[in-house]
Amino acid sequence: MTQKVSVLVAGSWGTALASVLADNGKEVLLWSRNEEQVIEINEKHTNSRFLKDITLSPSIIATHSLQEAVQDADAIIMVVPSSGMREVAARIRPFLKKDTLIIHATKGFETGTLKRMTEVLADELPEMEPKRFVVLSGPSHAEEVICKMPTTVVVAAEDIEAAETAQDLLITRYFRVYTNPDVTGVEVGGALKNIIGLGAGLTDGLDFGDNAKAALVTRGLAEITRLGTAMGANPLTFAGLAGIGDLIATCTSKHSRNWRAGNKLAKGIALDDVLAEMGMVVEGVKTTKAAYDLAQRYEVTMPITNELHNVLFEGKSPQLAAGDLMGRVRTHEMEELPLTR
Amino acid sequence: MTQKVSVLVAGSWGTALASVLADNGKEVLLWSRNEEQVIEINEKHTNSRFLKDITLSPSIIATHSLQEAVQDADAIIMVVPSSGMREVAARIRPFLKKDTLIIHATKGFETGTLKRMTEVLADELPEMEPKRFVVLSGPSHAEEVICKMPTTVVVAAEDIEAAETAQDLLITRYFRVYTNPDVTGVEVGGALKNIIGLGAGLTDGLDFGDNAKAALVTRGLAEITRLGTAMGANPLTFAGLAGIGDLIATCTSKHSRNWRAGNKLAKGIALDDVLAEMGMVVEGVKTTKAAYDLAQRYEVTMPITNELHNVLFEGKSPQLAAGDLMGRVRTHEMEELPLTR
Repeated sequence: MTQKVSVLVAGSWGTALASVLADNGKEVLLWSRNEEQVIEINEKHTNSRFLKDITLSPSIIATHSLQEAVQDADAIIMVVPSSGMREVAARIRPFLKKDTLIIHATKGFETGTLKRMTEVLADELPEMEPKRFVVLSGPSHAEEVICKMPTTVVVAAEDIEAAETAQDLLITRYFRVYTNPDVTGVEVGGALKNIIGLGAGLTDGLDFGDNAKAALVTRGLAEITRLGTAMGANPLTFAGLAGIGDLIATCTSKHSRNWRAGNKLAKGIALDDVLAEMGMVVEGVKTTKAAYDLAQRYEVTMPITNELHNVLFEGKSPQLAAGDLMGRVRTHEMEELPLTR
Repeated sequence: MTQKVSVLVAGSWGTALASVLADNGKEVLLWSRNEEQVIEINEKHTNSRFLKDITLSPSIIATHSLQEAVQDADAIIMVVPSSGMREVAARIRPFLKKDTLIIHATKGFETGTLKRMTEVLADELPEMEPKRFVVLSGPSHAEEVICKMPTTVVVAAEDIEAAETAQDLLITRYFRVYTNPDVTGVEVGGALKNIIGLGAGLTDGLDFGDNAKAALVTRGLAEITRLGTAMGANPLTFAGLAGIGDLIATCTSKHSRNWRAGNKLAKGIALDDVLAEMGMVVEGVKTTKAAYDLAQRYEVTMPITNELHNVLFEGKSPQLAAGDLMGRVRTHEMEELPLTR
C-alpha cells in the first residue's frame, strides 16, 4: 500500500522534501495557507515564489485544508518556521491519528521559551509519544535537492524504529538519509549553524577573506559544541552532517539565506530592511537571540554569538564586531577547542 | 637585538611568511635556488612568478647562498616542498648553530618512507633536539596573508617554549598564532586536508553542488581524524585550525591549488597535464599515495582517499569515483563519525 505523507508548509524546503517523497513513490500532500499558491502548484506544477524555474512532479498535490492534509497521513513532515511550530502543531492535533509519524525539519528555537522544536511538539501533541518525534537536518540547500543533486541528511529520534521509518520514506539515489539517536544534538546543530552563517556573510561582506572565514567556522563549531554538550547533546553529533556538515553548507554557499542576510548587514543595510528585502524567514536572527540567552542559562562562552547579538540588537557596527572577534587575545589553541569537557 | 630569521624557499607561502616577519620587525633573509628570483626580489621587491602584483617590504633580503641564510639565523622557517625537505635539511646542517630554532610549514609526507616532516628533520639534523622542531599550519592562503588579511595559524612543538618562541616571532595584528603541543596532529591535518581539497575540486568540477561538498568535507574530516589518531595524534587537534579550519579553507577557496587541480581533473584533463599547467607543487597528489599506504599500515578505512587514489593512479573516471563515494551504503551516521575510539 502506498504510504501517504503530508508536508506542512510549501516553502522552498517543504517543496523540495515533497519532491523527494514523490520521487520515492509516496502519495504527497503539500499544505499551504495561501490559496493562490495551492492553485499554482496543482495547475501549473510550479512554486514560483520559492523555487524559480522548477517544474514539480504532478503527483504532488497541494491543499489548503489542514484536515485533509493530516487525517489520513502515515507521516507528516513539519517544515514551518520556528515561530509557527506551536500554532501549527496545535491546529493539527484534532485531526491527527495516534500512529502518524511526526517528522520536523525546522532549524531554530522557540522565542521566549528557548525550547527545541521537538519540545514544542511534545507540549502541543500530548497524545503522541515524544520519543517517536523525528528531526531531519543536515547540509541540504532546497535549490539543489529540487534538482536531484546529491545530498546527505540525518534523521534523529530517541526511538530508533521511528528514525528508520523516516529514513525509509525519504531515502533515494540522490538523497542519502542517515540515522542518529541524538535528537538534542541534531536540533541544536541545525539551529546554531545559522548564527555562524550570518557571521560568515558578515565577514565575507567586509572582505575579510577565506582565511578569516575558515577561522570563524572553526571557532563557530567550537561554540556550537560547547552549548550543545551543555544541553545534553553527544559532542560527536557536531562532527557529523548536522554539525560541521551543515555549518560548511551554510557558510560557503550562495544559497544560504543567513549568509546573504549577514552579507547585507555588512554593507550597512539596517536589519529591518534586510529582512524585508529577503522576503523569507531568516532563522539566524531569532536564533542569535535565543542562543545568547541559552549561553547565559548554561553558563557557556559564545564569543561569535555575543558579537552578532551586539550587531543585531545593540547597534554595534559590523566592522567593530568582526575586528573584536579576530583580535581576541588567546594563545593556546586548546583553550578554544570543542569537545573539551 | 633584532632577531634574524631566514626563510627557505621563496615560493608563495615562504614569501608571505617573510612578509609577516618583516612586518614584525625581524631581519629577514629569503633563500632561493633561482638567481634571477633573488635579483628580482632585491632590486624590484617583487616575486612575480608566485605573487603577482604584490610589492614586498624592501627589508626582505633575498640570497642565493644557503650558508649566508643559515649561519647567523636565530630561526629558520623551512617552506620547501615535502619532496625537497630531506635534501635541504642535509644541506643546511654544516652551517647550522645548535640553538637555531627550526620551524617548518610544509604540508605533506615523504614519499616512500611515509615520514612526517619533523621526522625527516630529525633524521638529517641529528645535532638538534627533535622536541624543539616546530610545525606551522592552519587556514592560511599566501595570497591573503601577503595582503595582511586576518589569518589564524597554529604552531606546534613538543617543547612548549620552542612553540612560544615561534609564536613571538610571527604574531602580528593580522596574523594570529596559537600554540599546540600535538606535532603529529598538526602535521597530519595539514597534509591530509590536501587530499580532500583535491576531492572537493573534483566534485565541484562535476557540478555536484554545495550539499555534496559539505558531505565530502564532513566525511573527509572523519577519515583524517581516524588516520591521525591511529598515528598518535590528539583527536581534538582535528577540530581546530589545523584540522577542520584548514580543510574548509582548502575546499572552498579559489586560492587552493589542490582544489584547482581536482577541478581540472574533473574536466577530463590528464594528471600530468594538470600538474604541468599548474606550474606549482600540488602536494595533494603525492599525499594521496602516502595516505593510501598509511591507511593500510594503520588498518584505517579511508574511502575518499581510496577513490582519489583510484582516479589519480588507477585510471578510474572522476565521475565513477564521485558516484561511488556518494552512493556508498551506510545508514547509521555514527559509523562514519570521527573521534570514536
